[in-house]
Amino acid sequence: METNDHINRKFPIPEPTVRRIPWYLSYISHLNAVNVEYVSSTAIAKEINVDSSQIAKDLSYLDIKGKTRIGYEVKSLEAKLRDFLGFNRRHPALLVGVGSLGAALISDSGLQRYGLDIVAGFDINPRIIGSVISGVPIYDIRRLISLRKSLKAEIGVVAVPPAAAQSVADLLAESGIKAIWNFTPIRLRAVEDVVIQNTSIYADLAVMYNSIDGNML
Amino acid sequence: METNDHINRKFPIPEPTVRRIPWYLSYISHLNAVNVEYVSSTAIAKEINVDSSQIAKDLSYLDIKGKTRIGYEVKSLEAKLRDFLGFNRRHPALLVGVGSLGAALISDSGLQRYGLDIVAGFDINPRIIGSVISGVPIYDIRRLISLRKSLKAEIGVVAVPPAAAQSVADLLAESGIKAIWNFTPIRLRAVEDVVIQNTSIYADLAVMYNSIDGNML
Repeated sequence: METNDHINRKFPIPEPTVRRIPWYLSYISHLNAVNVEYVSSTAIAKEINVDSSQIAKDLSYLDIKGKTRIGYEVKSLEAKLRDFLGFNRRHPALLVGVGSLGAALISDSGLQRYGLDIVAGFDINPRIIGSVISGVPIYDIRRLISLRKSLKAEIGVVAVPPAAAQSVADLLAESGIKAIWNFTPIRLRAVEDVVIQNTSIYADLAVMYNSIDGNML
Repeated sequence: METNDHINRKFPIPEPTVRRIPWYLSYISHLNAVNVEYVSSTAIAKEINVDSSQIAKDLSYLDIKGKTRIGYEVKSLEAKLRDFLGFNRRHPALLVGVGSLGAALISDSGLQRYGLDIVAGFDINPRIIGSVISGVPIYDIRRLISLRKSLKAEIGVVAVPPAAAQSVADLLAESGIKAIWNFTPIRLRAVEDVVIQNTSIYADLAVMYNSIDGNML
């Protein structure tokens, strides 16, 4: 939390606000890259198609206020948004299931830029165990509990086949992980004190297919 | 639509229903793999933690009804759910932005199992153009419009840096694509008659980080 001390958050913050802030951040980062100094909520609103009063309200949760007739200072706004989202902090993570998607996530350097630091992979396949992917060592899943502690990992990324998802989630919870990022189509049963975050790329695909066919409300 | 003729859909279907069906499918596939023949909505409900009346209602949208005291026939239920979700049909797709995430998506064979067939990648980087990743050729983005037509691609996957996202979306729309699958943190401006599906992995990360810190409603 150290790097966040200069933000006076107004807790708690609604999830839709947290989800809109990356939109603001990507536009503000672009403005910063092209050396724009100030931006109004009206200008942000026009660019990303969110109501300007909604933007002002979202930013007020972070105790960020624009100046009358000038707007927000771009450079400091970018820093505050990144800090708020947690993208500036390092979050050590384990990944379980080094198949096609798992290996892809390990190799995606974009995740690191957004604060996710995958420090170890785990699998049951002896042909994968002992290998190194993009600098990340792959271990036998039986070593997960002891390595979780020594690596101080707080997030467990689950990319195993559906049938193994719940038992892997239970193992991660037992190891003392704080959050599980679930890429399987399985709905994991909640584990006490462990945050479960689903990224449902296959559900997104199904929604897209059905939208193309005009089947959806 | 040919393979769907045996499903009597009740249009239109709410998005939350479409999003729950992959949960049912992953459990039903598991039951089928272990040779279970029938399953009740109560048993599904217990396993995936959705109300059994909700499950029955969701399945009734697909005109699937269980038999009293027996439940649903597992094998045919699995086939119907896969068909409904569009996972059994081939959806030819282009991917734009063959960086870290883009190359990872091309290499993820899981997407193919769920019906997404990435047939070509596009980039502006001369060092990548002309290469082949997991059997998928990478072309100069200037060839997108002509190749879209000859490859009959219906979906465009966008994995470019944020600053390029909108212009790539506009190009895909101009090429006659039906849907855009957006992996950038940018909120794309709607283009007429083009479905926009966002998979916001970075927003999911931000939500997870803030949930760990207990900041969210």
